[in-house]
Amino acid sequence: MSPTLNNIASSLQRSGTFINALIAASTIGGQQLFSSFTFKCPCQVGKNFYYGSAFLLIPALLLLVAGYALRSQMWTMSREYCCSCAPPRRRISLLERKLACLRFFSITGRALVAPLTWLAATLLTGTYYECAASEFASVDHYAVFDNVSASRREQILAGFPCCKSTPSDMIQVRDEVALLHRYQSQMLGWILITLATVAILVSRCLATCCSPLPSRQHWYWTNHLHNERELFEQAAEQHSRLLITKRIQKLFGFIPGKEDVKRIRIPSCQDW
Amino acid sequence: MSPTLNNIASSLQRSGTFINALIAASTIGGQQLFSSFTFKCPCQVGKNFYYGSAFLLIPALLLLVAGYALRSQMWTMSREYCCSCAPPRRRISLLERKLACLRFFSITGRALVAPLTWLAATLLTGTYYECAASEFASVDHYAVFDNVSASRREQILAGFPCCKSTPSDMIQVRDEVALLHRYQSQMLGWILITLATVAILVSRCLATCCSPLPSRQHWYWTNHLHNERELFEQAAEQHSRLLITKRIQKLFGFIPGKEDVKRIRIPSCQDW
Amino acid sequence: MSPTLNNIASSLQRSGTFINALIAASTIGGQQLFSSFTFKCPCQVGKNFYYGSAFLLIPALLLLVAGYALRSQMWTMSREYCCSCAPPRRRISLLERKLACLRFFSITGRALVAPLTWLAATLLTGTYYECAASEFASVDHYAVFDNVSASRREQILAGFPCCKSTPSDMIQVRDEVALLHRYQSQMLGWILITLATVAILVSRCLATCCSPLPSRQHWYWTNHLHNERELFEQAAEQHSRLLITKRIQKLFGFIPGKEDVKRIRIPSCQDW
Repeated sequence: MSPTLNNIASSLQRSGTFINALIAASTIGGQQLFSSFTFKCPCQVGKNFYYGSAFLLIPALLLLVAGYALRSQMWTMSREYCCSCAPPRRRISLLERKLACLRFFSITGRALVAPLTWLAATLLTGTYYECAASEFASVDHYAVFDNVSASRREQILAGFPCCKSTPSDMIQVRDEVALLHRYQSQMLGWILITLATVAILVSRCLATCCSPLPSRQHWYWTNHLHNERELFEQAAEQHSRLLITKRIQKLFGFIPGKEDVKRIRIPSCQDW
Repeated sequence: MSPTLNNIASSLQRSGTFINALIAASTIGGQQLFSSFTFKCPCQVGKNFYYGSAFLLIPALLLLVAGYALRSQMWTMSREYCCSCAPPRRRISLLERKLACLRFFSITGRALVAPLTWLAATLLTGTYYECAASEFASVDHYAVFDNVSASRREQILAGFPCCKSTPSDMIQVRDEVALLHRYQSQMLGWILITLATVAILVSRCLATCCSPLPSRQHWYWTNHLHNERELFEQAAEQHSRLLITKRIQKLFGFIPGKEDVKRIRIPSCQDW
Repeated sequence: MSPTLNNIASSLQRSGTFINALIAASTIGGQQLFSSFTFKCPCQVGKNFYYGSAFLLIPALLLLVAGYALRSQMWTMSREYCCSCAPPRRRISLLERKLACLRFFSITGRALVAPLTWLAATLLTGTYYECAASEFASVDHYAVFDNVSASRREQILAGFPCCKSTPSDMIQVRDEVALLHRYQSQMLGWILITLATVAILVSRCLATCCSPLPSRQHWYWTNHLHNERELFEQAAEQHSRLLITKRIQKLFGFIPGKEDVKRIRIPSCQDW
């Protein structure tokens, strides 16, 4: 790769926007694939709601948990600030607490991208909501339902998301109910997106305004954290290799990887 | 990549026009994809308007917010000039205020590209407007509607965007209404595009004419801001690395990355 | 490969998340391939349940055993801490015991990825469960089954997963039973996934909070174990080759693999 491309790649890697866009795009793609393979509304009384809700909410919760759990920073922080069984090694200053809050906010923001995208994508698609809400549709104003008993009506309503089981005189009702549910689902989706956007904007404004550090220092600090981790890992790797090399030299009498070995040592049984 | 291509790429990267064209093109593509998958007019009284308006306006608002929020300059500026909870670090001169206004105008211009493209694309396509305006069509001059009650008329009008539910004698009316709405939508789109173009032209003229700096100095200043950020980030990176290297040397007893390490230190438990 | 790509590849290789994702993805892919080629419900009374359960549970058990057995660390640990026939060579400190527990937890976590993914994927797909549960479907409320003898009913129920053998008047019943089983299977899948996620989260929280080492030292220690094994294997390989080379030189009079051999030695009968 040319240096320009390298630079672009490394700056993209650090840029939160790019990573968020990637997460959102893969969530949308995964949702479409997943639901096309596995989602099949049961169309039975008392089951549609649980089925639709499970497909709507559980993946979102899982994605939220995964979003938190996959950030190693989260574990470091939770260990430093929350664990009561870990020994308190040093006092934590007010500035440190504020910065930890900021980091927690930034991790939360990243962790919320995938579940919100999942919810928005499923609500805008509408099939899950249509299945979950099918039993609760109000069809009192349709004349077709006048002579239908309550239990039969429940059954017909539950059967709406599956196209086969609807009686032929109710197909128009089914289409209208489907359009209504789609409308509700997509409106909920838009409301969710709007609320999320407002929340992101407000929280980012608050974070920017009330950050204990000026913007340049904040940039420096974020970058510093990243560099610290990188350099520490590099140094620890080198330190650990040097330490092991010494021990191996003691055991075998030569430095591993060197070409010109003059003498080797045959380890005794106690050495192992 | 050859140096020529590198030059072209880096000059394109800095050129506002290229980025704006990219944003506009991806907005148009996204709009077409998005509406083909998700847009389905509910065709029910009192819902069409909200549905169509939501699809027309909410994405535009979101794109506007995103356009502002994704520019880190925006946050730096808002922190420097708006936050009352941040401590006032220095007095801001009149020239600085004017330059901040200029920068704000330039960010606004970039942020408006995507929402305006969205609005123009949806209005020129016309489906969203057709759904939103369907209930408000005036059909008093059609003889077919003479014997129709008000509520039934509302229902028929709301059903116009969905082709199935229209009575056969009103198909011609529906087609005429659809053509009328398409005309209105596209005219609104052209008016919007014209107004936006005029506004861009006027504001750019004003910015050029009333800029507190001569054009060469303005160019210098824009370039200076860019260079300042680039060089600051480079220096901060180096500073942070030097600082961390020192700390690691204290912990492990050697400078990470150096080849000839004479002695290493095994950190005690207190050091971690 | 350029150094950047190399770095990314090596960091991915060490990252537990990436490896877990790879294991999960290949398990899902393998499950889909495997079941499309080999799974064919027998559709005979008294056989469906065993067949479906075997396909559901045995691969999960095998994957669990394989997950443990493929980690050489597991065998090293079990030898050091569990074998009573091995001579006790040294006393094991409390810290070492705690670290062994941590390592055991981490190995268990990795070993559980594949079987849990298998179970979740098969339950969300639903075909195995549908076959296993087909005989236990309750069809008392269907009028079609009123005049059917018990043994014939069993036969019909067992034949449901195979589409051919169902009488034409029971196709609707079969479809409803299939949807019901799919619903049960997928709900079980979601419950399993939720429970697994909660368990992972709780155990990881406990592991983080009660770890005897600070987070950095823990990172260093994990990395150190990895490096120790790698370098020891490298050095042992080199040591063993050097030793054998010396013996061969003694026997044949030249170093094997060298180009310019000046003199060779014909081994006497005692040398062999």
